[in-house]
Amino acid sequence: MDMENIEKELQELKSSLDAVDKKTAENRLAMIVFSGDLDKVLAAFIIATGAVAMGMDVVMFFTFWGTPVLRDKKKKVGGKDIMGKMFGTMLPKGTGAVKLSKMNMGGMGTTMMKSLMKKKNVASLEEMIALAEELGVRIYVCEMSMDLMGFTREEFIDYKGLGFAGVATYLQEAQNSKIQLFI
Amino acid sequence: MDMENIEKELQELKSSLDAVDKKTAENRLAMIVFSGDLDKVLAAFIIATGAVAMGMDVVMFFTFWGTPVLRDKKKKVGGKDIMGKMFGTMLPKGTGAVKLSKMNMGGMGTTMMKSLMKKKNVASLEEMIALAEELGVRIYVCEMSMDLMGFTREEFIDYKGLGFAGVATYLQEAQNSKIQLFI
Amino acid sequence: MDMENIEKELQELKSSLDAVDKKTAENRLAMIVFSGDLDKVLAAFIIATGAVAMGMDVVMFFTFWGTPVLRDKKKKVGGKDIMGKMFGTMLPKGTGAVKLSKMNMGGMGTTMMKSLMKKKNVASLEEMIALAEELGVRIYVCEMSMDLMGFTREEFIDYKGLGFAGVATYLQEAQNSKIQLFI
Repeated sequence: MDMENIEKELQELKSSLDAVDKKTAENRLAMIVFSGDLDKVLAAFIIATGAVAMGMDVVMFFTFWGTPVLRDKKKKVGGKDIMGKMFGTMLPKGTGAVKLSKMNMGGMGTTMMKSLMKKKNVASLEEMIALAEELGVRIYVCEMSMDLMGFTREEFIDYKGLGFAGVATYLQEAQNSKIQLFI
Repeated sequence: MDMENIEKELQELKSSLDAVDKKTAENRLAMIVFSGDLDKVLAAFIIATGAVAMGMDVVMFFTFWGTPVLRDKKKKVGGKDIMGKMFGTMLPKGTGAVKLSKMNMGGMGTTMMKSLMKKKNVASLEEMIALAEELGVRIYVCEMSMDLMGFTREEFIDYKGLGFAGVATYLQEAQNSKIQLFI
Repeated sequence: MDMENIEKELQELKSSLDAVDKKTAENRLAMIVFSGDLDKVLAAFIIATGAVAMGMDVVMFFTFWGTPVLRDKKKKVGGKDIMGKMFGTMLPKGTGAVKLSKMNMGGMGTTMMKSLMKKKNVASLEEMIALAEELGVRIYVCEMSMDLMGFTREEFIDYKGLGFAGVATYLQEAQNSKIQLFI
């Protein structure tokens, strides 16, 4: 092997290495929050804030039952059609209206769990969301769910960098993420 | 360092690079569909068809409550034992009998959601499955679930390349997939 | 390019390759068991034992409703406060008290499923846990859930290497795992 061949081989190795490097995942967590249950949404935020505290980039996609959790109960939106009004009334409006998936017992279980969390110094869902915002957790709301349930962008919480996106955006983020979860 | 050593080092680098390359994931999405709820199965197919449209290889494993969703209501299968007959009757037979996980309200919520999807031009579950087939989404039905619920291969939908497999097949696919989800 | 430069380039390639190698995932499955439903916990153990049988390192994190599943019904723990006693009574104590997520029908569905599993030679949850222990599946119980529900370490099953940990431990394991699931 002469000098010229060696240089060529080195060059090839470098580009092969670049190609392999591109196939490795980013230090990111991509999470779908499909559930609108208090316990599952809490778990999602505990994992999300924990991951960002460890230096990971974290992105959450709220879809289906998870969507109404991010509505702001103080915001009133008019001009909805009948279906939109119905969903608007029937689905929980924001974090305060979210229930446990089990042992809700007409709301009693949920109230108990919340008071217990307070006593044990576990952050509430509202505090979790504020922490996530502060730590830079990125949040997307699923546009198809919004469309189905008749939600408008104006009725969602104020959250720095809240985005509205479809499944393609989720997949692009998830495709190169180290961790993906469906909650 | 002389020429011979350089050649040796180059060779070693190449095989190390190959070894690292083998550890990177394939551009594949491996999904377990455990749920038999209309909303979750819809979400699974929206993600699956979205991923395949983005150039990913997609494989879905239907297990437990997800299994009966893929039965064909037009197909009649005889010769079942009592347990098989019971499960056959109690579990939903195909996509038409699948309900929402929340707000089903005796079927009314599910009917509302379906008419809403039509109005908003969201594909129905039946259309989603047809699209998935067309796009080449691979589907496996869990053999252990079939055995437990007394389902036979003959009662499942016609779907190009529908396979029947166990947990080992799922794990082999998931092990080298960029994205894995449990729905 | 002279000899010295080649040596330098080779050295750089080696360290770049090491860096890329560190970004690839370990042959590990990290699973969150959030659900306490018999069907989902069974699925979790079927996947876990299948993965370890295929040579993967497997770690399970039991959190929220999954936590009480690992309690040992034979162990009595005193000195709990009122909330702890309430949760202790209301939540299932161990594998024997775990129900199906659907078709439980006042316990009848769960009993039917268990007898069916026996008939079809599918291992019971108790046998699955014993097998997981034998195969070396690592299990962690979520400390925040224990704290919330008032569980003490003494009331959990005897399981070789059972650990108690927080979300950071989960994330450290999941971050470098080939497969991550939320069940």
